[in-house]
Order: sequence, then structure tokens, then C-alpha cells
Amino acid sequence: MSTTTTPEGTATQARTAVVPSAPTPPGPGPAGDGRLDVETLGRLLDGRWADLRRASRDLALEPAFKKVEGLPLAEHRERTLGQLRTLATRGVVHRAYPVALGGSDDPGGNLASFEELAVVDPSLQIKAGVQWGLFGAAVLHLGTAEHHARLLPGILDLSVPGCFAMTEVGHGSDVASLATTAVYDPDTEEFVLHTPIAAARKEYLGNAGQHGTAAVVFAQLISGGVNHGVHAFYVPIREVGPDGTLTYLPGVDGRDDGLKGGLNGVDNGQLWFDHVRVPRVNLLNRYGDVAADGSYTSPIASPGRRFFTMLGTLVQGRVSLSGAGVSVAKAALAIAVTYGLERRQFTGADEHEEVVLLDYQQHQRRLLPLLARTYAAAFAHHELLERFDDVFSGAHDTDADRQDLETLAAAAKPLTTWLALEALQEAREACGGAGFLAENRLVGLRQDMDVYVTFEGDNNVLLQLVGKRLLTDYGKGLAKVDIAGAARFVAARAADMTLHRTPLRRAAQSIRDSGSRARSAGHLREADAQRELLEDRVEAMVAEIAQALRPARKAGPAQAAALFNAHQHELIEAARAHGELLQWEAFTAALPRVRDPRTREVLTTLRDLFGLTLIEKNLAWYLMNGRLTAQRAKTVTSYVDRLLVRLRPHARELVEAFGYTPAHLGATIAAGVEGERQREAREYFRRLRAAGLEPVNEKELHASQQKSGLAAPPD
Amino acid sequence: MSTTTTPEGTATQARTAVVPSAPTPPGPGPAGDGRLDVETLGRLLDGRWADLRRASRDLALEPAFKKVEGLPLAEHRERTLGQLRTLATRGVVHRAYPVALGGSDDPGGNLASFEELAVVDPSLQIKAGVQWGLFGAAVLHLGTAEHHARLLPGILDLSVPGCFAMTEVGHGSDVASLATTAVYDPDTEEFVLHTPIAAARKEYLGNAGQHGTAAVVFAQLISGGVNHGVHAFYVPIREVGPDGTLTYLPGVDGRDDGLKGGLNGVDNGQLWFDHVRVPRVNLLNRYGDVAADGSYTSPIASPGRRFFTMLGTLVQGRVSLSGAGVSVAKAALAIAVTYGLERRQFTGADEHEEVVLLDYQQHQRRLLPLLARTYAAAFAHHELLERFDDVFSGAHDTDADRQDLETLAAAAKPLTTWLALEALQEAREACGGAGFLAENRLVGLRQDMDVYVTFEGDNNVLLQLVGKRLLTDYGKGLAKVDIAGAARFVAARAADMTLHRTPLRRAAQSIRDSGSRARSAGHLREADAQRELLEDRVEAMVAEIAQALRPARKAGPAQAAALFNAHQHELIEAARAHGELLQWEAFTAALPRVRDPRTREVLTTLRDLFGLTLIEKNLAWYLMNGRLTAQRAKTVTSYVDRLLVRLRPHARELVEAFGYTPAHLGATIAAGVEGERQREAREYFRRLRAAGLEPVNEKELHASQQKSGLAAPPD
Repeated sequence: MSTTTTPEGTATQARTAVVPSAPTPPGPGPAGDGRLDVETLGRLLDGRWADLRRASRDLALEPAFKKVEGLPLAEHRERTLGQLRTLATRGVVHRAYPVALGGSDDPGGNLASFEELAVVDPSLQIKAGVQWGLFGAAVLHLGTAEHHARLLPGILDLSVPGCFAMTEVGHGSDVASLATTAVYDPDTEEFVLHTPIAAARKEYLGNAGQHGTAAVVFAQLISGGVNHGVHAFYVPIREVGPDGTLTYLPGVDGRDDGLKGGLNGVDNGQLWFDHVRVPRVNLLNRYGDVAADGSYTSPIASPGRRFFTMLGTLVQGRVSLSGAGVSVAKAALAIAVTYGLERRQFTGADEHEEVVLLDYQQHQRRLLPLLARTYAAAFAHHELLERFDDVFSGAHDTDADRQDLETLAAAAKPLTTWLALEALQEAREACGGAGFLAENRLVGLRQDMDVYVTFEGDNNVLLQLVGKRLLTDYGKGLAKVDIAGAARFVAARAADMTLHRTPLRRAAQSIRDSGSRARSAGHLREADAQRELLEDRVEAMVAEIAQALRPARKAGPAQAAALFNAHQHELIEAARAHGELLQWEAFTAALPRVRDPRTREVLTTLRDLFGLTLIEKNLAWYLMNGRLTAQRAKTVTSYVDRLLVRLRPHARELVEAFGYTPAHLGATIAAGVEGERQREAREYFRRLRAAGLEPVNEKELHASQQKSGLAAPPD
Repeated sequence: MSTTTTPEGTATQARTAVVPSAPTPPGPGPAGDGRLDVETLGRLLDGRWADLRRASRDLALEPAFKKVEGLPLAEHRERTLGQLRTLATRGVVHRAYPVALGGSDDPGGNLASFEELAVVDPSLQIKAGVQWGLFGAAVLHLGTAEHHARLLPGILDLSVPGCFAMTEVGHGSDVASLATTAVYDPDTEEFVLHTPIAAARKEYLGNAGQHGTAAVVFAQLISGGVNHGVHAFYVPIREVGPDGTLTYLPGVDGRDDGLKGGLNGVDNGQLWFDHVRVPRVNLLNRYGDVAADGSYTSPIASPGRRFFTMLGTLVQGRVSLSGAGVSVAKAALAIAVTYGLERRQFTGADEHEEVVLLDYQQHQRRLLPLLARTYAAAFAHHELLERFDDVFSGAHDTDADRQDLETLAAAAKPLTTWLALEALQEAREACGGAGFLAENRLVGLRQDMDVYVTFEGDNNVLLQLVGKRLLTDYGKGLAKVDIAGAARFVAARAADMTLHRTPLRRAAQSIRDSGSRARSAGHLREADAQRELLEDRVEAMVAEIAQALRPARKAGPAQAAALFNAHQHELIEAARAHGELLQWEAFTAALPRVRDPRTREVLTTLRDLFGLTLIEKNLAWYLMNGRLTAQRAKTVTSYVDRLLVRLRPHARELVEAFGYTPAHLGATIAAGVEGERQREAREYFRRLRAAGLEPVNEKELHASQQKSGLAAPPD
């Protein structure tokens, strides 16, 4: 079990020796034990750009990058800025940029590397993301050759720290409604940037609080009295004084957002503009340009499509946050599982031997399904990242590819960022008081990751986007459907409608079940059965919502809006189910890539745990909609319990494969101290007993007095 | 709707004017609107000790007590100590102590007042709790007259800040296994306190990091080679040097726990002892004493009962944390609901009018069920506090009363502290980026409250305790059961077993339903129907676990432990269901106390929302166990949706009743700034349109060009 005592583990130790060795459990190992191929698992989990990922992860081993918990705000900000300068010097943050500018034209590798920074220090990740993933990327994707040549060198080498000034106080997720204006003045060939109302102040911008000297500002482009919608403008905001201090340029003002719930290495702030003039060429004009005379042209005629195309170029933010969520969930579980394998509490069958936390069913229930979700999320994220690379490398870059990528990212980011918060919180609670100490990393990471669920698209808003896309696809599907498909749809609806009166599906299932609990549980372990249940739920939910929304077509706007709103929650749940299905499919697709049969078997068990906990979570739906009988449904939970028992012996290896050593994690409790204390305590009590020095227990004394006929108190 | 414009609101304004006035919604108010009796609701929510609660809540209005977010560790600690000195001077923290010592003999009022401190600053609450609720309370309840006279004056006036040294590095929840020893030395009439191993170091003790000069240390009392179990000893730990600095006394050492995830105004730390001698009289000897010659006596003969009696005297910690959870959940929802009623995002039916967040179904789904749970938890907490006061005032203080109180506290504390975290997190996410700024309080409160779910008894361990008690009661119930009861039990089991083959219950229900969705939903609104479903689930779960555990009686210890472990998760879920039932019952019992019919109706709707969301959460169980047909189950969610719509118009009043003004909450976004910004924005756009200055939208331009026959791009 332990990496230091198993010969075949040696090869992987330099790379993935991960978790400190624990004392060999007394007595024979748990049933089904046996060393897994952790090296292969690790490669699989690290995906196509594994080497870049690992190099990035190793930044946590450098003292200059290792997160220092509890730094005062100002110090944390300066430290993070310094770290960014080092990264800029090393060039490791420029991979997505063109070779001509010192980059590698490697969008996928860039994100893989970036995603790992979250475990090093989320502030480092986000400040780097603001500079090179948002500010710089906006210039790259929304600007043209002149902008690239003029602006990108300073952005890449960090001589111009900048802001991505999109969100306003009044509008976060609803970018189309931004109220900042950029009115073209043909007399001077300038745009006049202006903040007309307090709600239009730019808000929560990284680098705006302190370090930024320029910003890409999103504003309504108005020329000749026509509003051409939101466009991006390059706007200098601060100048460096002779003494090196930064001051706002004329017409620019702002506010430091100050202390936040986390990410305090990033200097977020507000910016606002009082008729600030920038030259016409500062419009990032790839998707819309204004000629000297004020006439507007665009390669995309439809304002709506143009807007979404422009926003779509910035999808990498969401993709990479999804990856960051996976990285952090892995770290959280590596810490909690390691501790749960060393920590003992309360004696069980043996009065001298306390029980290891992870041997408690409840502890397994708390951590192992999260472990399964993390694996699923990791595999799904790799598929998302491949799609991202396909589009941004130009390999597969059609409008449809971009739309699919946006939908996939909108489905992935909510699931993984929420997973990260859940994993961190469950890990923190599972580590008790030790989990609450800053030195054990969990609380600090949770504070930092908290905002990931609402920035770069609020998670609920993103899921609603996915839901709308599902409805659209469903509508298209109906239009083009073949006869068999249509029949299937009608039949499914009919089954739904008549379920209680003529439960045909149920009857059929009961026959198949043949009254055998074991057999029906076995059936649920089959991948096809899981897939069918998961797919069926998404399809049926979408179909039901589509049907319910049908009257909206002929209704007035108020009625239509009310009808849509009455199904908003269902729609978001359908989108979540869709995202979970994608994760399940990615997990399943990864299984054949493991050659070692033992490892593949355990990984399949983990996939089953993922699938069955999804089914268990939505069991009521499966029952109400006749997809499972009560009898079969009852087997789900007991089968989950059995999977937990089967996976328990492999918990250590399953987190070893994440590739974190104790030094990467930087958490005292994941560095073997608990195991050391347990050994000392056991040795102490063993010696006392051996030497006959252990005091007699009062209770035992009463018992022996009673035996010898002396009066003893009742218990 | 607004408190400032409604005449009948005037009387309550001074006390509960709570939430800033919002702009009157355009057009007529939502259906079912009408001012509730917020004053009565507020009284009901504040319970028997309302005046003490409110006085304590008002500490947040004093600049010296108002939480300052982001103070450096050292400064926060000093500030909190200073606040404690002020509280000691005012005498408001001594209410639980005897009148003779300057207290009020008012245990219930003391806790009510204490619980409200969490919203002022959880660090203030916990440091006060350590001093007067744990350290002082241990001397009061475990010591005798001599200790009270000698030790309590210095504890009450804070001249002796002290630690409650129970938890050890190696043992948190398992107090019986503490490894610190106190060996009696009859030669010197002293106890020798010793920490034999690292795992026995006392850990996470408030006041140990820095300020404490004494501690109540829990250790195994050993005299004449017999271990009499865990007892409490009063141990001086630091002395004040001539320059005022504190140094450890000889043989005492410790470690500062440093930065934590929150509560950084409390100086937690470790303590350990190297053969530290204290006089015999420093044993807090109410439940066990050692004579000069070393002979041990106790008023409670059984060591087991003695141990639980001693621990039981300290139940107030759990009771008060439950109350703190309620207070904080209220504050979180007051902030998020206020913001959700002002904030608008995305236009709906009207292109010039953005939709108020709380008009979105998903936003209602996120916040209103939490509001219902908070009401339920508040009412349940009042019942718990009454029971606590009954026992500790001596009004009803039998062994059975104490055991019931402990079980109630063990059920309440997990539910309310988790509720507080959920409410804070959902509120934070519902407020978007603004929720992440420290100035809006939610993140700071969440950081502080995080540890409430694992200290004073880990929530999972507490629920397991409750579950064991339920099993015991069930066993007793079976033993004493009358014939009708036994028959009912057998019938219920039989129904469970044969459900799928002869669904008798279901058939009966289907007949009652008569195919009418509306009628079956109406049925679920009846209190009796909700009660039956909730009660039935607890009973059936306990019965099923008891049955499953039956073979354990005749099994060996290893098998019995394994069998119990295989049902641990179910047992914890049964305990949770039991706690939720208690909350539902308390909520229902509170309804008749509201005289105003409109207010009672709305409160009943809120209770229904609580009941139905509980049923919805466990819908699979009700379906699998034949308590609901698929048809009726399907009505649950649509009925919840309808309740949300009905409650929406009253959301503001329902949080107004919590009694927090914006000054109490101290959150910028709950002080009306968002409403002000919205008004400015609407006015700005209205004026632009009125003056004909609004730029033409490019899309509209295309449309008008198309109308006039000019070429326009496709959309």
C-alpha cells in the first residue's frame, strides 16, 4: 500500500510519490487490495499537456511562488505582482500568443499550464489570467495587426499591467446592457469614453485597484447617432510619475475594492470615465471599425451575431476556470483522504485500536463520491480543452465549433467550480479543527475559490444558457426527426402521461428484475444501463419543458416571459443533468485507455460510483417517470454502499494519481504528522500495558470487586 | 410595502425598521400584497427573551463592537479582548451566574443574549463563550462552593482570562479517550498534570494562544493506580511579569495556532504539561473527589454515568451555537433578500425595464426555502432554549430532562450551523461579485461560522448520537408497546415488504386522489398530511435500521461493529430527519400565536414551503416506501413553485421581522445603494428617451432600412 515499501512504486516516486507513507495496517490488508498502476492513472488525469501541467504544478515547490497564508493585503498584492514579473521573464505565460510575438501558438497547452496555478495560489492564477488571459487576449482576439504590434509587447512583458474593463456595477452577466458609452467625434478622430451614471462604473476589475496602467474598456460604440453595440477600446488609465508612483490620467477615476472574501493578491477595483478621449485607432477593430468620417463597417452584418462572436473569442476564461476547479478539487481530496487514512477516532471492535476515519461508512460517503466526481470532471475537462484547442489553433474552427465550445464551457464551468467548493468544504469538515487552521490550506483555498462560481459568467446564468441551447437543439431535432425518432418521442410522452394508470414500462422492468436484488443491482453496474438512465433524463426533461413552453409562441411578451420564468428552475436542472451526462461519458470513454486490468477494474468501479450517485441523487425523478421501479430504486443506495467498500482500499492510490507531493499541497496534516503521532501514541500505550504500568480502570475495578463478592456500584 | 411610507409601519420603525425602503414597484403591487404584522412576527422570532436579544443585537450599532473586516491577526485579538473587558464591566455576560456572584441566575436569558453576538462579530461571541460559557461554566458546574468563591470573581471580571482545555490533538469528539493524566500524589497532596505523548497536547483552545493565565484541564484522574476517568482541574498556566508580559509557568508550554479560516479575534492554541503540580483542591470536585489519602469518592457510582453527567453540565455550548446559527442565517438572508429586491438584471417582457432578481423563479428557489428553514430553525431553537432554561434554572431538572436536553441540542446544533453556512453561501452567490466584497459582510461571516459545524461536537458525530438515542427509544418503545401500537408496527413493516407486489397503500391513495392534481396538492398543504409524512419517515427509517441491526446482538464485536458501520449513513440521515421534524413541529406550534389573519396565512404558507421542500428533498424515499404515488409526488414540486410565487410579495416583510436595520447588518449592499443606483439609471435613460437623445440601435436601423426598401443584413 505504501509508496516507500512497494518496489513497483519506485519508478513513479520521483514524479508522483504524492502522499506520505502510512503505517502498514495491522493484520492482513483489506480485501481486494493490490497496487494500481498509479503512473498510468496520473498520465490519464494530466491529459495531453501533462508535462506542461506538471511543470506549472511544480511552481508550488519554489519558495517564491508557494502560497503564504494570511499575508496582509498590500504585501500579498506586491508579492503576486512580483510573481507575475517572474512568470513574464520566464515566458511561460505567453504560450497562447503568436510565435512572432514570443509565444508558442499553443492555446491548449497554455490553458493546461494556467489551470494548475490555482493550487499554487489562486491569486497568482487570477492576476495572471487578467493580464494575459483577458486584457492581453482581448487585444489579441479583438484587435488587429496594428494593435498586436503596438500593444502586445508591453502586455506580454508586463511593462503595461492592464484591466479587462467589461463588468459594470449595474451589469455583470448581462454584457449587452453595459451603459458606458464611446461616442465617436469625427472632428478630432477620437472616441469619447464616458460613464454617464454610477451603475456604469466598471467594477471588480483585476489590476484596477492599484497596478493597472491601461485597460480594454467595453462600451457602447456610438457614431453618427447610431449605437453599434458593445465594442472594446484600449484606454490608458494611469501614468507613472517621476517618483514611480501611479496616478490616474485626466478624466479617469476609480476606487479600490479593498478586502475581499479571498483572492486578496489581486487588486480589484472600479474605474470610471469623464469624457476621456482616445484616438480612433484604439478601437479594437477586428469585428467592427469606424472610418475617419465616422462610418461603421463590420465583417459580421448582424449586430447580434457580431456581439456573440466578439464575446466568444474570450471563452478561454470559462474553459480555464473549469480546469482550475478540477485542480483544486484534486488537491482538497488529496489532503482530506491522506488525513482520513491516518487519523483514528473512537475504538471499534478492538478496545485498544481506534478506527481509521476512512473506515467509517459516513466518512467514505462524504469523500469517495467527491473523488469519483473529480475524476469525471477531470476527464470531461480534457475533452473540453481539446475542443478549445481545436478551435483556437484553427484545426476545427467553424461557427458551429465555436458555438459548441461555448456551450460545453458553459456546462463545465459551473459543475467544476461548484465541485471545487464542495470538495474543499467537505474536506475541511472531514479534517475537523485541523481543517480550519490556515496551515492546512483548505480554508485559504476555499476563500479564494469562492468567487469562481460567480465570475466569468455566474454559474446559474451559464446553466440557463446551456438549457436554452438544449431547447433549441430539441426544436431542431423535432424538425428534422426521422420517423423512428418521432415515434420514440411520442411513445415516451405517452408513457409519461399514462404512467399511473397503465404502468407499462414498470411492468416490463419488474419482469426483467425477476425479483432479484443482486441481479438488478448488477444491471445498474452495466455502462449501458447507466447511460440510458442519464441520457433519458436529460431528453425527457428537455422535452417536457419544450412542451410546457409551447404556448409561449402565441402569447404576448409578458405572458411568454412569465411562462419561461415558471420553468426556469427545471431548465437549469436539465442543463445540470446534461453537464453531468457529459462527465459520465468522458469518464466512460477514458476507461479503455487503461491497460492494467486491475487498475481498469478499480477505475470502472469509480465510474460506477459516479453514475450511481447521480442516479441516487435524482431517484425521485426516475421513480415518478417510470424509469425505475421502487424495487430497483431500493438497490441503488445499497449498491453505492458496496462500491464504497470496494473502493476504500484504493483511496490512497486514487489520490496519489493526482500527482501532488506533500510539498505541492503545503498542508501540515497531509505530510505524515498525524501518522507519526498515532504511532507514538500506540507505542506508548503498548509499553504501559507491557510494563503493567497502566492504571486499572475504575469500571474494571468494580467488576473485579463484584466478582470477589465486594459491593460494587451499579452501572 | 416600504416601511417609511406605510403609516401602520411607524410604530415598528424605531425597533424593526430593518431594511431600507425600496422604490415603489411600478404598476400595481403583486397579487396577494398587504402589510403583515411585522411587529408580532418580530416578537415571535425573538422569543421569550426578546429584550435581551435586542439589546445584545444593538451592540453592532456601537463603533467599539462593530466588526471590522480584515484586521490583522494581532490587532483583531487585542480588539476582541478589549471588547470582552467592556462586556465584563457592563456585567451583561454574567447572567447565568448566581446572584451572589453578581449574576442573575438567568441561564436562558444569558444564552439568548449570547447567541446574538455572532452577528456582531463571531470572534467576540466565541472569545466570550470560552471565558464565561466554558472556562467559567466548568468552574461553576463542576466545582463546588470553595471554587466558586475563590475562582469565579476573577473569571467574571476577566482578570483571569482562561482556557477550556478539553480537546487534544489526538482526540476531539471522543472525550473519554483523552490521554492527559492527573496522577494524585498523597505525599504532597497534589495532582501531577502530564502530557505523555504529542497526541495528548491540548489543542484549539481559545485564550491559549496568547491571553490565558489559567485553564480548566480535563485529564484522566489516577489515584492509587486506579483510573477514575476524565475529571477537570483548575491549572494556572501563565504569570504576568513585572513588565506586564505573560510567560508560561514552569512545566507548561504551548503553541499559538496562528491564522485560522476565520474567528481570528480568538487566540487559539495548544497547551501541554510536563509534570505540573496543582494542589488537591484544584480538582473541580462536584462529581468526584479525592481525599488527602488518595481515596476517591463520587455521588455518582457508575463511572459511565458520572462521565456523561459531567459533560452534560456543559451542554450550553451546543445550545448557544444552535442559536448563533439561527441569528447568522437571519442576517445572511436579510442581506441577500434586500439586495435581491433592489437589484435588476436582464430585461423581461418590457425592454426598458429590467427584472428584479427576486422575481426570477430560480432566485426564489435559492432564497425562499432557506427563509422558511430559518423560521423553522428559529422556532425550534426557542423550544430548545426553554428546555435548557427549565433544566438549568432547576424548574425541571431530572436525569431524563437532562438527557432529553442533550439529545435535542445534539439534533439542533448540526441543522442550524449547517443552515447558517448554506444561507451565507447562497446569499453570497446570489449577490454576485458584490457578495464577495468584505464590506458586504457575507464572506467574513462565512469564514467565521465555518468552524461552528465541527466544534462543540462535530455535526456528524452529534447526529450519530441522536440516531443512537432514537434506536434506544425505539427499542424501549417496542418493549412497552401496547397491542394496537404493535399491530401498527407489524402492519407498517408488512406494507413495506410487500409494496411492489400488492401496493395496498398506493391503491388507497390513488382512490383518495381521484385523479385531481389540484386536490392532491391541496391535501399536502394540510398540516396533518405533512406531519404524517415527516413522522412516518423517521419512524420507518429507525425501525428499518433497528431491524437490520438485530443480528448484532448475537454477533462478535468485530461483526457487530461492521454491521453498525454498514448502517451509519442511514442512521445519521434518520437523525437529520428527526431534527427536521422537530423544526416543522415547532414552526406549526408557533402559527396559532399570530392573531392577524393575513400574517398567520402568510406564515402558514411559509411553513408549508418548509414542509413541502423537506418532502421534495426526500421524495424518492416516499415513493420507494409507498407513502406517495408517482402522481401525487409530481404535484409536490409544482406546489412548491406556487408557494414561492405566493410568498414573493412578502419577502421583504419576512426578513424585516428579523429585526436588523442596515446599521446592524453593516453591509453596504443592504443599505439602499443599489436601489439608489437603479433609480438614477432609470431616470437617465428616461430623460434620454424623452429628449430624443437616445442613439438609434443599429438593429432598429437595419429594420427601418429594410422597411424603406434599403438593403439590410440578415439577422
